[in-house]
Amino acid sequence: MFYAVIPAGGSGTRLWPLSRAGHPKFLHALTGTPLSLLQATYGRLEGLATHESTFVVTGVAHAAAVARQLPSLPEGNILVEPTPRDSCAAIGLAAAVIARRDPRALMGAFAADQLVRDVPAFTDTLTRAIQGAEDGLLMTIGITPTHPETGYGYLHVGEPTGTADVCKVAEFAEKPKLDLAQRYVESGEYLWNAGMFVWRVDVFLDELARQQPALHDGLRRIAEAWDTRDREEVLAELWPGLTKISVDFGVMEGAGRAGLVGTVPGNFGWNDVGDFHTLGELLETDTAGNVVVELGPDVTVDPGNPAKPTVLMQDSERVVVVPRSGRLVAAVGVSDLIIVDTPDALLICPRARAQDVKKLVDSLKERGSIELL
Amino acid sequence: MFYAVIPAGGSGTRLWPLSRAGHPKFLHALTGTPLSLLQATYGRLEGLATHESTFVVTGVAHAAAVARQLPSLPEGNILVEPTPRDSCAAIGLAAAVIARRDPRALMGAFAADQLVRDVPAFTDTLTRAIQGAEDGLLMTIGITPTHPETGYGYLHVGEPTGTADVCKVAEFAEKPKLDLAQRYVESGEYLWNAGMFVWRVDVFLDELARQQPALHDGLRRIAEAWDTRDREEVLAELWPGLTKISVDFGVMEGAGRAGLVGTVPGNFGWNDVGDFHTLGELLETDTAGNVVVELGPDVTVDPGNPAKPTVLMQDSERVVVVPRSGRLVAAVGVSDLIIVDTPDALLICPRARAQDVKKLVDSLKERGSIELL
Repeated sequence: MFYAVIPAGGSGTRLWPLSRAGHPKFLHALTGTPLSLLQATYGRLEGLATHESTFVVTGVAHAAAVARQLPSLPEGNILVEPTPRDSCAAIGLAAAVIARRDPRALMGAFAADQLVRDVPAFTDTLTRAIQGAEDGLLMTIGITPTHPETGYGYLHVGEPTGTADVCKVAEFAEKPKLDLAQRYVESGEYLWNAGMFVWRVDVFLDELARQQPALHDGLRRIAEAWDTRDREEVLAELWPGLTKISVDFGVMEGAGRAGLVGTVPGNFGWNDVGDFHTLGELLETDTAGNVVVELGPDVTVDPGNPAKPTVLMQDSERVVVVPRSGRLVAAVGVSDLIIVDTPDALLICPRARAQDVKKLVDSLKERGSIELL
Repeated sequence: MFYAVIPAGGSGTRLWPLSRAGHPKFLHALTGTPLSLLQATYGRLEGLATHESTFVVTGVAHAAAVARQLPSLPEGNILVEPTPRDSCAAIGLAAAVIARRDPRALMGAFAADQLVRDVPAFTDTLTRAIQGAEDGLLMTIGITPTHPETGYGYLHVGEPTGTADVCKVAEFAEKPKLDLAQRYVESGEYLWNAGMFVWRVDVFLDELARQQPALHDGLRRIAEAWDTRDREEVLAELWPGLTKISVDFGVMEGAGRAGLVGTVPGNFGWNDVGDFHTLGELLETDTAGNVVVELGPDVTVDPGNPAKPTVLMQDSERVVVVPRSGRLVAAVGVSDLIIVDTPDALLICPRARAQDVKKLVDSLKERGSIELL
């Protein structure tokens, strides 16, 4: 039995104003299909896990939206965190809850807001990762790099273990500068760390206990109370004090140094849809290189009025337009620009500055404009 | 007695989507004051004409808005054209109506959508133009050029008449190419044709009769019926057949060749507020050269929520923002851009392409998107 865990957190700051704290990236359909990123993530795991063995860990603000977007997911499989305590607590909670049901269960964790183009290749990679996990390794999925990306962490690949294509991970490398990223890619020894993990829950929880004993004990006590009437009381008592740390820093890097981490390379059209420039590269362009990020099922535009265009571009090239307000977006003579039009906020930004959208959101936070975040 | 006539027509296509057919440029407050361009035009004529001797000629779509924006203007002084027949019919109608009341009246025509910074200098220039008009000339106001503008017509200044600073106009010159505009400005012999006219109504109507006899006869017959119960019937019969021509082509150029046109140079901070780039140059900038075209009295924004900013610019320079939807306009890393945000349409355009907004509006017309025009 394989358990799939989908941590559905994070607001996708670099996709503001489309992605908001109240309606974050994973709830949006962004990739030219009617499915939200969460729905697509759930769908691609159906070949590996049943609905009963799939869990989503999310915050109080999004539990209802998750429940509605995934009607086939059993209610009890939506694990709702009282407050965000970072990924180690979120993933650890799922591991502890699953371990109560099946102490040697195999579990994978898959971010809710990533894109996978080639699902059969993804399934094949996962199947190989599961073999490494069965052998007792904490497995990562390493994406074969296509360019010297500075926005991702890298995995330095070590010795093969002999099972499937599994190799040990010699080292976790932080987000590199461009020249270092180029050396990584040229060496052929590095993979992108996609933040997808596969392991036996007992192996993971043992490492958690070794490296983060307080967090481990808290999560074990919460998991024991999970299916009882004490759940809320125990959560209220313990959750706020849990160590706030990412699973990478909290467990994986230390486990790597202990020789416990493996990886399999994957090449399945992975993308983290991190910003509007990246999003523009994923979608089909018109002859001038312009991309219109089509409306998902969460927005409708005046279908009775086909004469009302949504986007009108003249003499414009390589523009990424996200029309989500129903208004006309008209551009003349612009190029390499991002235009995101939502009912209460508009963003204009060159594609080369797509990362800086985060700074804008920081400014809004400083101003206290919380209703726009 | 001086009669001031304000033709209030034209939709200001290059100011779309702010200026619309239904709410054209002259009804908007654009220049950092709470007054609309029409109200400012009306106000600056108060030193020269009484309310009773001021007329506005406008279309059926804007008669009510004109009446509300100018509460002190007598109802009977709003001359409503059944359909647009260009400026010769509009100005000629006012001249004919005024001539019925006062056959040798002095009259001036002043577009409703221009900006004048120095009203005392404007009044002084007009006073000199009136002297030329009393001598029987069709007077133009010539703006002293500040740069080789290619978007305006020019007046080639001829011999002085001996009255005030009045000179004959030797020739009307069409909108020139840049090199020709430069020669005009360097020669010191050319003025911009601001489209402001001063004349005795009898002199104007005589020239109209000579050059456009059918239009003249139609307007005379309409003017005779104006203050009778036959007005609507006569308008319905004659107005649709009136010659559609501008006053420049229909009368002034021919009158110039006949030696009947004079001009006085004016230097009173004139601007035709023709496009968003020009508008940006009129207003105060922040230290990065950005301009926010403030809200006029026709739009209000959430005054109870000062934490909600209207415009947020980071690392951006020389941007013209017109925030008219109440939404946040956020820009990162852009420069020399125009951003116009209205409730149903958004425009993005480099300042250097401000003239091309007209092409966009033409595209919308072709698509039949009439509700956006």
